Order: sequence, then C-alpha cells, then structure tokens
Amino acid sequence: MTHTAGELAKYLGAQTDGDPSIQLTGISSPERAGPSDLIYMDSPRHLERVSQSAAQCVIVPFGTQIARKTIIASDNPKLTFVKAVQWLAPRRRPNPAVHPTALISAGAKLAPDVFVGPYVVIEQGCQIGSESVIEAFCFIGRDSRIGAACWLHPRVTLYAGCHLGNRVEVHSGAVLGSDGFGYVFGEGKQWKFPQAGGLDIGDDVEIGANTAIDRGSLEITRIEAGVKIDNLVQVGHNVTIGAHSVVAAQTGISGSSTLGKGVTVGGQVGIADHCKLEDGAVAGAQAGIPTGKIIRRGQIVWGTPARPLERFKEQYAHLSRLAELEKRVRTLEALQDKAE
Amino acid sequence: MTHTAGELAKYLGAQTDGDPSIQLTGISSPERAGPSDLIYMDSPRHLERVSQSAAQCVIVPFGTQIARKTIIASDNPKLTFVKAVQWLAPRRRPNPAVHPTALISAGAKLAPDVFVGPYVVIEQGCQIGSESVIEAFCFIGRDSRIGAACWLHPRVTLYAGCHLGNRVEVHSGAVLGSDGFGYVFGEGKQWKFPQAGGLDIGDDVEIGANTAIDRGSLEITRIEAGVKIDNLVQVGHNVTIGAHSVVAAQTGISGSSTLGKGVTVGGQVGIADHCKLEDGAVAGAQAGIPTGKIIRRGQIVWGTPARPLERFKEQYAHLSRLAELEKRVRTLEALQDKAE
Amino acid sequence: MTHTAGELAKYLGAQTDGDPSIQLTGISSPERAGPSDLIYMDSPRHLERVSQSAAQCVIVPFGTQIARKTIIASDNPKLTFVKAVQWLAPRRRPNPAVHPTALISAGAKLAPDVFVGPYVVIEQGCQIGSESVIEAFCFIGRDSRIGAACWLHPRVTLYAGCHLGNRVEVHSGAVLGSDGFGYVFGEGKQWKFPQAGGLDIGDDVEIGANTAIDRGSLEITRIEAGVKIDNLVQVGHNVTIGAHSVVAAQTGISGSSTLGKGVTVGGQVGIADHCKLEDGAVAGAQAGIPTGKIIRRGQIVWGTPARPLERFKEQYAHLSRLAELEKRVRTLEALQDKAE
Repeated sequence: MTHTAGELAKYLGAQTDGDPSIQLTGISSPERAGPSDLIYMDSPRHLERVSQSAAQCVIVPFGTQIARKTIIASDNPKLTFVKAVQWLAPRRRPNPAVHPTALISAGAKLAPDVFVGPYVVIEQGCQIGSESVIEAFCFIGRDSRIGAACWLHPRVTLYAGCHLGNRVEVHSGAVLGSDGFGYVFGEGKQWKFPQAGGLDIGDDVEIGANTAIDRGSLEITRIEAGVKIDNLVQVGHNVTIGAHSVVAAQTGISGSSTLGKGVTVGGQVGIADHCKLEDGAVAGAQAGIPTGKIIRRGQIVWGTPARPLERFKEQYAHLSRLAELEKRVRTLEALQDKAE
Repeated sequence: MTHTAGELAKYLGAQTDGDPSIQLTGISSPERAGPSDLIYMDSPRHLERVSQSAAQCVIVPFGTQIARKTIIASDNPKLTFVKAVQWLAPRRRPNPAVHPTALISAGAKLAPDVFVGPYVVIEQGCQIGSESVIEAFCFIGRDSRIGAACWLHPRVTLYAGCHLGNRVEVHSGAVLGSDGFGYVFGEGKQWKFPQAGGLDIGDDVEIGANTAIDRGSLEITRIEAGVKIDNLVQVGHNVTIGAHSVVAAQTGISGSSTLGKGVTVGGQVGIADHCKLEDGAVAGAQAGIPTGKIIRRGQIVWGTPARPLERFKEQYAHLSRLAELEKRVRTLEALQDKAE
Repeated sequence: MTHTAGELAKYLGAQTDGDPSIQLTGISSPERAGPSDLIYMDSPRHLERVSQSAAQCVIVPFGTQIARKTIIASDNPKLTFVKAVQWLAPRRRPNPAVHPTALISAGAKLAPDVFVGPYVVIEQGCQIGSESVIEAFCFIGRDSRIGAACWLHPRVTLYAGCHLGNRVEVHSGAVLGSDGFGYVFGEGKQWKFPQAGGLDIGDDVEIGANTAIDRGSLEITRIEAGVKIDNLVQVGHNVTIGAHSVVAAQTGISGSSTLGKGVTVGGQVGIADHCKLEDGAVAGAQAGIPTGKIIRRGQIVWGTPARPLERFKEQYAHLSRLAELEKRVRTLEALQDKAE
C-alpha cells in the first residue's frame, strides 16, 4: 500500500485542501502518527492533538482549517476514515491453503480458495464457502455450514449443525451452538431437556472473544444479519437477535428472549427469559430486564429492574435527596410537637 | 429410531388415546414438527399451537382432549417428554476409538471403550473411565481422574489433579482447576498465594461453555452431585456447591463461599467471599451477596445488597412513590407556612 | 523437597520456638495437614483449628503460643508462609523442551531453554525469552514478543503483535489482543472501525482463565507491571491498567478507560468508556461507573451509578427506612386533617 492524498481523495469522491502529493503508507492516532500516516478528526475538541501530530494528511469535518496539513473534508469524518482505511490498508487475508495438519472429513465440502490453518478439525457433512479463513485449532462440528468470506480466528468451536452466513467474523474462544441450559426437575433430580435445535447466524455478523451462543432446544437460535456481539456475551437457547443490533461485552440474554432490529444493549446487561425488546430499543449498561418484560420500540431503559431512563434518573435524584426529605419531615414533626 | 406411539406409551407406562400405530421418528416444537415428530404440551395456553401442529402425537396433561391427535397423558408432560426423548432419540455417543493424533501419556489408564478425539492431550497419571468421551483439543492435566460415561466437548481444559465423577458433561471452553485469585500484599507488591488445592466434581454434574472453576488454594473446591452450571460462570477457590444446585449464566462465586443443597442462583449473580447460602436458598438474577453474608434455608433474596424478595419489592415500591411522597411533604410544609 | 523447621526459619531470617528438627515435606490448611506439612495462622480466631491440626510446624503472629507445636513467628504470617512455600515447594517448571508437534515458524526466535508443549503454534516473527513455558494448544500470533520466565497455560491465544514482559502468567482460555468493539454507523449499517493498535503487558502480570483483553484500535492497550486480573474479565481497546492494580472476576472495562496505579476493582464491576480511576481508587463489587466518570485518588465507590461508599451506605439506610418515613408523613397528614 502506498497512495497519495490526492489518490485517496479521488477514491473517496472527495477533495484535498493542501498538497495532494503526500504519500500515505499507514493509519494512526494523532499522537502515534508518522508523516505518512493518515489520521482523522471528528470534533474540533481534538484540534490541538491533530495540529501537533506529525501526520500530514487529516480527514476533518467540512469547514475545518488546519495550518500545514493536507485535509480531506467529510460530513462524517470517522466513517470516511473507515472507508479510507479499507482502501489504503485492507486486512490481509491469508493466501488460500489447507495446512497439512488440518483434519478434514472426507465428506466435507470446502471451496477451493479457503484458508484452513494448522490443527483445525472439520467434521463430516460440513461446507465452507469461498475465501473463508479458518484459523488454527478451530473445531467445526458435523453438518455445519459456513458461507463465503467468513473469518474464524484461532480456537473457535462450532457444535454440530451451525449455519453461518457470509462475511461472518468470529473471535478466538467463542463457542457457537453449545447446549442450552434447560432442565426439568422431577423425582429428586434435574433431567436435561433436549437441546436439539439449531443456530443460524446471518451475513456480516461479528462475534467477540470467549462469547457463548447456545443452540435452540427444539427451536433455532437466530442472530440476524449485521449483528455485532462483543466479548464474553452469553446468548441462551431459542433467542433471536434482530438485524444490525449491537450487544456489548458480558451481557447475558436468557432463553427465548427476542431482540428486534437495531436494538442497542450496553455491557453487563441481564435480559431474563421470554423478554421482548422491540426495534430500536436501548438497554443501558448493567440494566436488568425481568422475565417476560416488553421494552417498546425505541424506548431507552436503565437500572434493575429496567425502567425508562427518565424515570430512572428521576428516582435516582429523589434517592439522592432522601436525607434532606427526612430532615424536612423531622422539622414538620417538631413544629407539630410544639403546636400540641 | 422408529417406534409407534403405542410402543412409546408402553415404555412410559402410559396409555394412548387415539391411533397407537403412528410412527415416531423425531422430536420437535409444535411449529417445526412434521407428522412423525413427537411434541408435548405442558399448559392449556399452548392448545392452539399444538392443535395446529403437523405432529400427530402429543404428550399432554391428564384430562386434555385434542381433536385428530394421538395423545399420551401425564401428570408432568415435560418430564414425560424428556423420558420419551431419551428412549426415542438417545444422544449418539461416538463409537469407542482413540484418534491417532491424541497424545496419551504412557502412564495414563484409559478404559478400553473410551472415545478420544483428535488432538487431545492426556498427561501422565490420568485415569478415564468406561464409555467416556473426550472430544478434540481437550487437555487433561496430569493425575486427573475422569469417571465413567463422562462427556467432554471439544476444547475443555483440566489443570492437573482434577477429579470428575461419573456422567459429568463439560462444554467447550470450560477451564477446570485453574489457579484461584489470591495474593498477599507486602513489600510494595502482590505475592501469589499458593493455589495448591484440588477440584472435585461429583456425578451427573453439567458445566457450561467457557465457565471457569478454580482449584482450591490449600483446600478442595467441591461441586457436588447433580449440580448444573451454565455458561461463563466463575467459581472461585475453596467454594462448595451442594448437590443438585443450579447456577445460571455469568454468575460469580468468590473464594470460600458455600452453597447448600438445592440452591438456585440466577444469572449474573455476584456472591462475595465467605458467604453461605443454606439448602434451598434462591438468589434472583443480578443479586449481589456481600462478604460473609448468610442466606437462610429456603430464603429468596434479590437485589444488591441482597435482601429478602418481599423486602426488595416493598423498597422498590416505596422508591417508585418517592416523587409523590416528596409532594405530600411539600403540601404539609405549605399548610404549615400558612398556619404560622 | 525436604527441610527441617530450623532450616526454614534460617532461610526466612526468623527463629523457631519448639523442636527445630521437624521435617517439612509439604504445605496445607490446618484441617488437611499431615505431621510434616507446614501451616500458618494469621489471626487468633483460628487458634483452635491450628491447635487441633496434625501439623507440627506453624507460622504465627509474634507473641502467639501454641502447645506442642514448633512455631515460627512473623509480623505478617501469611506473607511469610508464601515465602516459605516458594522455598519449600517451588512450582515445578517443566524441563526445557520443544514438543515435536509444535509448529514453530522458521523466523521465530526462541531462547534455548524454553518449554513448548504439544500442538502449539508460533507464527513468524515471534520471540520467546529464556525459561518461558508455553503449554499445549497455545497460539502465538505473528510478531508477538514474550519475555523471560513467562508461563502460558494450555490454550492461551495471542493475536498478532502482542508484547508480554517477564514473568507474565496467563491462564487457559485467555485471549489477548483480540479486536476491540468499535463500529461507525452509517448508510444503514455498522462499519468496523480499524482495530490496528497493539497490546503491551508489563512484568509480573497474571491473567485469569477465559479473560479477554482487546488490542488498541489506533492506540496501545496497556497492562502495567504487577497487575493481577482474575477470570472472565473483559478489557476493552485502548485501556490502561496501572501498575499493581487488581481486577476481580467478571469485571468489564470499556474502551479508553484508564486505571491508575494500585487501583482495586471488585468482581462484576462495569467501567464504561473514557473513565478515569486515579491511583489507589477502589470500586466495590458490581459497581457501575458511567461514561467519562473520574474516581479520585484513593476514593472508594460502590453501587450503580458508582458513588462514594459512605454516601452509598447512607442512601441505602434511608431507602431501608422509607416505609417508616411514609408512615410518619401519614401521621402528620392525619394530624393536619384533624386540625383543619
């Protein structure tokens, strides 16, 4: 990769202000940048950091002037930066190859241009699509299907019968399709309920390190297209997460709960079973959503038990004033005593 | 597997109402069922789903009538379904075999009918009982003992000296017997306290994906018979979890805490160190139990810090009425002002 | 290992009271000890447990007398015990060796005395220092550097370009240097922000089982010397954790937050993005620290949203008295009604 600022601007359909011949060989933050690194600024707050950077080329909001820099203006500098990076420094996919230590069942069907790393196990009946990358120590259980251009980092486990769409990225240690947590108590012990359903993951999903997503019990657990799931998240059996939803780290979603499209869930949120978060709902970090609760379209909830953000704030403000309230009651009581 | 409804009823010690010759080849939910799938209904709430199902044979509560279905009545349809599934569609244990890539120390003792998958490492002094299944990438540290009919899914790690009973099932990514988190601060740094104890796991325990259970420091961490632990749970050093207790996902149990028998712990609960939950105690999801706290036999607690459920509800109700209470105080103050 | 109590006392620069010729062959808790096990007592509370122990030699606080035991007195018995254990029963590092199944890139540089276990993958450009132990199934991504005397337990994953200092211990299932969780929403979808930064881990750090630490996006995620991180912890991109800080299990630290030196974080704490915990700050278990919050040097916070411990206690006390307060208001209202 080596391009000029002018070439980049042209690719982005944008224009340069300043010297367009500056060479770009990398990307960086303002502080760590060298002269040929591209940087961006999404708010005038960062003007000083950017001005003092060694970087010579900056993507900035329209209307920004910075002395001695070549600037490329955008109405969304961060997004423009992302697009620039994809062009300047695209992620290096390893060349197609199957490592001789990979154990691939005779019945598995792999596209000719996949990468399969060392010590991978792919069981019978699996399919892996074009350009997909399966790194070291991945385990792909029987009858699983992985689409095109997927990327499984080292040490991802798929139980039998998982289906992944295209361009799905899964980070190390994630476990997909494990048994759900379902028991029937009877005759003095817990009986394991069958966990015989499946797991379907749509296109463009990303799943974080050490996250666990259980297969359905008799249904299918579904992660729809474009969903982004952070590290150490727990997704229970029969859950549906709607398209383009975002789930931050260490959140847990219990069995049979449903998230609509474009739902945002903060970190360490607990969603009990059979909940429904409608499209565009937002659950703040550490919120606790009790069994069967419905969060309406676009509603923002907070706290445990989760309630609308404004109500949470109001209650918290009242709680903070309780000492004062008690004092006011004491004053009234004293006046009353005096009056009697 | 192919049985008739009549054969199934006979196996269950039950009776059919309807055509007993219906062939059963699988299990399902009402919506996903085909004509030869067995389904169940545990509440009249689901009558419509069940009536509309393509399934022809249903396990139902006594006294239920459903047109055009063969029914098998039970006083616990869900449990009867579980038993039916175990007979109709028992989990397929892989045939006994040791994969040539498994590295098994010369000193290890394996029953002749075990299954050991590819790329398994079993260190010296280990014992593995009859019919146990050790899937790919499992690591069994030296001197560990695994009983009969256990099932370790791919990528389970046992540190040295772990003891598992019979019929223990461990899901992918679980780490058993790791070092506890114990340090002594002195001379300006943290000194690691020895984590030299053991881990004992009883019969019929199930442990979820990516769960971590630490060995004892100088004691033994104990998970008693029949305990069920969900995904991403943390169990600290020297903890005891009593028989048939159930611990939901992402809960953490700190060092030296003790759970009695039949304790139920919801998801994301935090139990600090040296707590005691007596037999049958229940901790609701996200509860926080402070250091040294005792939860009495059968008590249900909620919230952080954990308190009895009724008290939690009462406090929350009061909290919700605080705005109103403040208003009432303001009214009293206004009357007082007027009176003066 | 076999030493006498007298030899141990000499090594510790301490003195024995009682028979110095007692043989010491192990360490234990009072209850599990045999006659030749060393035990310790850090508080008179445990005097009975210790007196009844079969152990003959005990490390105790100065001024303690125990009949029929050989005692070694210390002003910090627990720390003295740790030092004694390191001398009596040092952890057995495996002998230097590289297992034939380890796949080590031609370009990697390993000190001659490292241990590399079976089925390890070490990619190009990696360096591993003297006496380091890399156990089975570890994956060391390209250009990673591991210092001297490190210990990676089985199944640790390092993404490319991670730097570990000396004497770093990492437990099974930990994922270091995974991609951070950063997206830019635009044109109807989430665009992945580049996660191209690094991860630097200082000397003497310990990292728990199944913990995930993300690399920086454009910066470096930094874990400074002496930090101890428990199991199942999430550390986001661009985070800094200052020297000798301690982070308990299941805590999550979001992107770009900074912990100073000697910070203590309890279990299941949630620290949102761009927070700052100054040196010596303490966050109690399950605390929730909102975006951008600064916790001052040495301050102890509790609850969600996190507030100073005294304030948390005061508010909780008021909350517990709300029923009573409401009653008092009702009494005042009744008196008022009567008065009118």
